[in-house]
Amino acid sequence: MKTIAESMSTPAADGYAMPGEFEPQERVWMLWPHRTDTWSFGAKPAQKQYAAIARAIAEFTPVVVCVNESDYRGAVAVFDGEENIQVIEMTSDDAWIRDTGATFVKHPDGDVRAVHWHFNAYGGFVDGLYFPWDKDEEIALKMAELANVDRYRPDEFILEGGSIHVDGEGTVITTDMCLLSEGRSASVCGLAPWSDELRAYCEDKLKSYLGVEKVIWVKDGIDPEETNGHIDDVAQYVAPGKVLCIWTDDPDYPFYRECREAYETLSAAVDAKGRKLEVTKICMPKKPLFMTQEACDTIDVDENAEPRVPDEPLIASYMNFLISNKGVLVPQYGDENDELAVRQIQEAFDAAYGEGVYRAVGVKSEQVVFGGGNIHCITQQQPA
Amino acid sequence: MKTIAESMSTPAADGYAMPGEFEPQERVWMLWPHRTDTWSFGAKPAQKQYAAIARAIAEFTPVVVCVNESDYRGAVAVFDGEENIQVIEMTSDDAWIRDTGATFVKHPDGDVRAVHWHFNAYGGFVDGLYFPWDKDEEIALKMAELANVDRYRPDEFILEGGSIHVDGEGTVITTDMCLLSEGRSASVCGLAPWSDELRAYCEDKLKSYLGVEKVIWVKDGIDPEETNGHIDDVAQYVAPGKVLCIWTDDPDYPFYRECREAYETLSAAVDAKGRKLEVTKICMPKKPLFMTQEACDTIDVDENAEPRVPDEPLIASYMNFLISNKGVLVPQYGDENDELAVRQIQEAFDAAYGEGVYRAVGVKSEQVVFGGGNIHCITQQQPA
Repeated sequence: MKTIAESMSTPAADGYAMPGEFEPQERVWMLWPHRTDTWSFGAKPAQKQYAAIARAIAEFTPVVVCVNESDYRGAVAVFDGEENIQVIEMTSDDAWIRDTGATFVKHPDGDVRAVHWHFNAYGGFVDGLYFPWDKDEEIALKMAELANVDRYRPDEFILEGGSIHVDGEGTVITTDMCLLSEGRSASVCGLAPWSDELRAYCEDKLKSYLGVEKVIWVKDGIDPEETNGHIDDVAQYVAPGKVLCIWTDDPDYPFYRECREAYETLSAAVDAKGRKLEVTKICMPKKPLFMTQEACDTIDVDENAEPRVPDEPLIASYMNFLISNKGVLVPQYGDENDELAVRQIQEAFDAAYGEGVYRAVGVKSEQVVFGGGNIHCITQQQPA
Repeated sequence: MKTIAESMSTPAADGYAMPGEFEPQERVWMLWPHRTDTWSFGAKPAQKQYAAIARAIAEFTPVVVCVNESDYRGAVAVFDGEENIQVIEMTSDDAWIRDTGATFVKHPDGDVRAVHWHFNAYGGFVDGLYFPWDKDEEIALKMAELANVDRYRPDEFILEGGSIHVDGEGTVITTDMCLLSEGRSASVCGLAPWSDELRAYCEDKLKSYLGVEKVIWVKDGIDPEETNGHIDDVAQYVAPGKVLCIWTDDPDYPFYRECREAYETLSAAVDAKGRKLEVTKICMPKKPLFMTQEACDTIDVDENAEPRVPDEPLIASYMNFLISNKGVLVPQYGDENDELAVRQIQEAFDAAYGEGVYRAVGVKSEQVVFGGGNIHCITQQQPA
């Protein structure tokens, strides 16, 4: 396989672009959780939930689960007999392949390549969440080799896949809170955090590496402490021009301001095709989730990982769903609004594609939320 | 993927059999050498030679090189830009995938499955070569998952792929010296080494797992100390009914007796189809190779690996070639007989298939020989 450095070419220059998540997929990649300082009870409850999520996706798309050598035989046993799930050895620091994995781009002739972003564990030595992250930095490279595709490598641009959503027709949505923060590209490119120069720099990289022409900036995400506000907890494309956005009418809800501001920004936005975005509101869980002392007590403390502390708000957004072929895998928390969220998302897909073309399925994910993410964070699609 | 235990079924029962090496291949698997107690100068010269061999094979067949995490980035850099070579992470104890890897079997309908033999580092606690070998024991499992195929797993049968050669039409050739030795299946199945009962037991397993009906037993191989006499240093099929065998006219040559006996056994043998084997003699290197003090001095000493000692004969047989699609990769040592061996092998393929259908290519492999094996030992084909 070939490494294409920034000095050689970029996806945009070669006519490649990232397809929308609603476009056909060849497979979905996952990692296997293992950090005992991230996951409670030695990561065993999280592994069970990752497995259930993998099985739910495998109803729609083949799944590759990448596992550290020490957990390999155990994971093979968990998935033994599953026709649509492969278990492959891969060393990782943590288990968020949306953020550490390759972003796949596609040429109109059908050829697929990988983009291997730089990764620094969500902020490196500024406000990163764990150290070291060198194995996670290699995941996109290993995926490119496994997928047997050439690999674009930008010089220094730091990006996690959870901080972008594209429509496959020239537009990407992202957040200031993440891309312009001190711990991302600002920490390596020499431009001031939150500056116009940094914004222009990021727009240039996003255009070059995602093959887009227009960047829509939402100001804030809902988890300043963890991912620095990834867009994939806030909004998601259903189809080009059609966006879902989190919403609450309750002014006391932890993310009331962020929901409102994101909705307003997106409703006012015009995409690369000159379309005004059609924005649909999706509910939040009725009862916000918070970290408990009990959960913290079953997570190891390690000075190289951000400690979990009780009463921190957990980021339980229904927006962190995965679209995979004709399936939409929606997080569920045992909350009063679980069913409503699935219904709202189903209706949005029905409205965009016709009734029943896509199928929204609720999948429990509260263990993944305890670890700091959700269904979209732990999956990465490879286009067909 | 599915694990098919011996109590569930076997390849023979399901209509699967191992194809001949001369049949079409989808890809060739290799590992990446790394043990500093096996390979001189930190395995760097061996890695260079493995890379050259991989490139030679890639002229005929796609190659997958499986690499420990600690060597991963280095190996990717070595193969960067090679269209036909993938570099995949896989933990291994040593680098002999012929022996540790899966043996692939095929159904007449085209479906391929893997056989995952038991492996004990060439004799376990009796006369094995290194400890531990648990990562090598998992390689066939990982290959099955990567190849996305179901996997047969015998209960306790110990076998290395280098100890068998099949014709794809019902016959396997193997050696007493390896399969009936104290350190292989005898050490776990409760039958006496060298006994008729053990021979019958092995025949039964070979028939079940390779889909053959006839086992031809050659008494001795040429390396009693290392692999306990693998057949792949002694003989090889060119086509069904047509076998090559090592030969020397020099009574002082280290393997004079073994060459003669193997030739006589094979010449007298009748295969599963009732054919008398047509046996062609292939030369040995003019000058036998021996381990040198200088080479030993650059290999680490480790109490868990068999030490390398000066003046040990090295197993430099031309027979340890790989057939891969229309290529035949023949070991070369800088010996006076190098060219003769390539010519003899080319002539044998020309005689069997017509002139120039297969192409014999000499490839240097003396570094691999220092480590204890050769081109066939470090490769494993997956049928198309």
